[in-house]
Amino acid sequence: MKLKLSETYQTEKEMICELCKKFYVLGWVSGTGGGMSIKVEDNLALIAPSGVQKEEIKPSDLFLIDFFLSTEHSASYSIVENPPEHKISACTSIFVNIYKQRASAGAVIHSHSLNAVMLTKVVKDKEVTLKGYEMLKGLEGSTYFGSHTLPILDNVEHECDLADAVGEIVAKYPSAHAVLVRDHGIYVWGKTPQQAKVHAECYDYLFSAYVKELHLKALNLI
Amino acid sequence: MKLKLSETYQTEKEMICELCKKFYVLGWVSGTGGGMSIKVEDNLALIAPSGVQKEEIKPSDLFLIDFFLSTEHSASYSIVENPPEHKISACTSIFVNIYKQRASAGAVIHSHSLNAVMLTKVVKDKEVTLKGYEMLKGLEGSTYFGSHTLPILDNVEHECDLADAVGEIVAKYPSAHAVLVRDHGIYVWGKTPQQAKVHAECYDYLFSAYVKELHLKALNLI
Amino acid sequence: MKLKLSETYQTEKEMICELCKKFYVLGWVSGTGGGMSIKVEDNLALIAPSGVQKEEIKPSDLFLIDFFLSTEHSASYSIVENPPEHKISACTSIFVNIYKQRASAGAVIHSHSLNAVMLTKVVKDKEVTLKGYEMLKGLEGSTYFGSHTLPILDNVEHECDLADAVGEIVAKYPSAHAVLVRDHGIYVWGKTPQQAKVHAECYDYLFSAYVKELHLKALNLI
Amino acid sequence: MKLKLSETYQTEKEMICELCKKFYVLGWVSGTGGGMSIKVEDNLALIAPSGVQKEEIKPSDLFLIDFFLSTEHSASYSIVENPPEHKISACTSIFVNIYKQRASAGAVIHSHSLNAVMLTKVVKDKEVTLKGYEMLKGLEGSTYFGSHTLPILDNVEHECDLADAVGEIVAKYPSAHAVLVRDHGIYVWGKTPQQAKVHAECYDYLFSAYVKELHLKALNLI
Repeated sequence: MKLKLSETYQTEKEMICELCKKFYVLGWVSGTGGGMSIKVEDNLALIAPSGVQKEEIKPSDLFLIDFFLSTEHSASYSIVENPPEHKISACTSIFVNIYKQRASAGAVIHSHSLNAVMLTKVVKDKEVTLKGYEMLKGLEGSTYFGSHTLPILDNVEHECDLADAVGEIVAKYPSAHAVLVRDHGIYVWGKTPQQAKVHAECYDYLFSAYVKELHLKALNLI
Repeated sequence: MKLKLSETYQTEKEMICELCKKFYVLGWVSGTGGGMSIKVEDNLALIAPSGVQKEEIKPSDLFLIDFFLSTEHSASYSIVENPPEHKISACTSIFVNIYKQRASAGAVIHSHSLNAVMLTKVVKDKEVTLKGYEMLKGLEGSTYFGSHTLPILDNVEHECDLADAVGEIVAKYPSAHAVLVRDHGIYVWGKTPQQAKVHAECYDYLFSAYVKELHLKALNLI
Repeated sequence: MKLKLSETYQTEKEMICELCKKFYVLGWVSGTGGGMSIKVEDNLALIAPSGVQKEEIKPSDLFLIDFFLSTEHSASYSIVENPPEHKISACTSIFVNIYKQRASAGAVIHSHSLNAVMLTKVVKDKEVTLKGYEMLKGLEGSTYFGSHTLPILDNVEHECDLADAVGEIVAKYPSAHAVLVRDHGIYVWGKTPQQAKVHAECYDYLFSAYVKELHLKALNLI
Repeated sequence: MKLKLSETYQTEKEMICELCKKFYVLGWVSGTGGGMSIKVEDNLALIAPSGVQKEEIKPSDLFLIDFFLSTEHSASYSIVENPPEHKISACTSIFVNIYKQRASAGAVIHSHSLNAVMLTKVVKDKEVTLKGYEMLKGLEGSTYFGSHTLPILDNVEHECDLADAVGEIVAKYPSAHAVLVRDHGIYVWGKTPQQAKVHAECYDYLFSAYVKELHLKALNLI
């Protein structure tokens, strides 16, 4: 374990806190739902704590974890900085497996957005294909005339039990920047925190549009 | 009457004012609707005043009441601090009965959220069961695969007349953290003001989802 | 003309500016729509200017008008303070007639809220009756078990041509605190600016609920 | 190239940054979508950069371009100020052609508003006619009893390929202050940045109302 510097990565810590405030306004982390992680070194990541109001977190509330770069799915990690009053998030091993399977991921946002969740209610399949919107171009590698497919995992009782499934599915969908979890929400990543936020906004817009479009079709308006 | 300290509980008073501003933005206390209470001692609680814009209240606008801990439903209390220009809220006896019946409740939020009210329009029954959303886990004691049931009381003309019914129903639903009142709104509590807010946000999300889901089912989209 | 004091009524001027900012966030005065007036003396009222972004107005942008207290509908007035760069609002004579017909009105809010406008699309009648919501109690004189009826006028090309019709209809509906104008919006008043805002929020909530309820009934969900 | 003054047009640069923050809150520029331009001289315009979060841009992030006033559609321009870390926006040539075809346009807003996009999903035609709302009067030259028609172009893969089509269509619809692009969004202009914003708000309101009205008609509620 190389680091034990509670003021290290202060910029990234502040960024997580600031972004969580914005996500709260967008309705993505209400209750104590959702969360965020930034990878600060190849094997080190900051993680928002579990079970707290995400819009209220301070830099000193964040966990710093060390994980081993490997292609195996088991989400092993050790805690480098542990804010004494907090519990590590149940989605930590999910974040870890995303970083392990997607080397380019530099940040992950977990949102409970109702747009994402309602989409998983109307799409019974194990994946959803998004197409027909300019906003697709906000997703790296996607085009307007192309389409973009995201996997949908079924939810489980204990979030940590999703970690292996997330790791496997991330490997199977190399063009996806997110995994949907039915009845639950979404994990979205990007090369940087900025790109993770852009991807999260584009997906949320596309999910909202997807359900609206189905709705208008059901009324023969499209 | 033990206390007459207008600056006592200043932190809790400021918290009520700050939270009411947030609830206004969420649409829970528009008009002069809704309100909030924090229990500051075993038998003492702060209560927002009646008939005023909740997003504008200051610490000096709050009432402090003393109530007797008993299991009887009658919501007796005496006023310890009475801001001269204000009228005590009609929901005071409801807050009191919630504290009496639910010893663990440390704060109560009363919201007129349209999500809550529309749910009571579509559910004709005397209770509603919420299930199928990860957000259930934000409600203490609930699980994703389980379900969570809330009582729905019919509204009455004078809010104070709801007090006994609220007291009885709170006792009958030990797992619930809230009582819905048809055409009116919701009373939500938690061990702390933070937990009350978390519960209120989770319920509001679940109510919105409940009506959306019914809507999508009516169009054969689910 | 008794006054020529550009700093008179500074508090009320600031209140109009501050409230217009809030109304913009609520979507009531987007474009350059909507407006606000406060009656500062028996025959004097401040009025927001025409054709400007309401969320940007400053105290020095406001008109001060002098009108004669009479029961006749003709909305005569003289301009006491005329910000040189602005045009007096086309709804000035409407505000004047409301003050003339409703002696208790101390402030009027004009909103283009889409909730109000969509209600006037679904209600073809010359009035709408609101009932079945606790929020009715935020409207002075209304009860939960009672109902509350508002007149709906048809829109005209030139807003000033509505003035006589508004004056007449205000006299005919003594319990109403507002007049709806089809395809256009609403004029809401109260004894004070605070009460006008409370009435406007309650009506907006009730209009939104009214259309939602019709929608859910059309799908047999209510 | 006449200018190389990085602090020139500072007021207009700050205005673009401030307005983009507001548009983000309105949901018009989420992801990295949308953008804005202000014409600062007859042949000079500021343009927001491509592929960045529009709510985060600073004055120093803006491009200044010089274009030739002509009636031809080819959107030729040279870059006067080029922030080294940014890429010029793909919609630059669209902005240029709007300025060339509409001499009175002093500012252009490009929005990805979902209200605009859903309208282009329900309207299969090459234009849409808006009528029956007071808000039409916020669009210069429009009346309540009249109607207002906007062209709808089909989207293309590369935004720059829209430039000629936009130039042609702007010339064909002299009363329009905007061009809709199907599945994509809208380009809205005005004589000043203020009027462009007012037009954009009025259109967005009218698009939202248009789809709501169709929806209510499909349920026989209108």
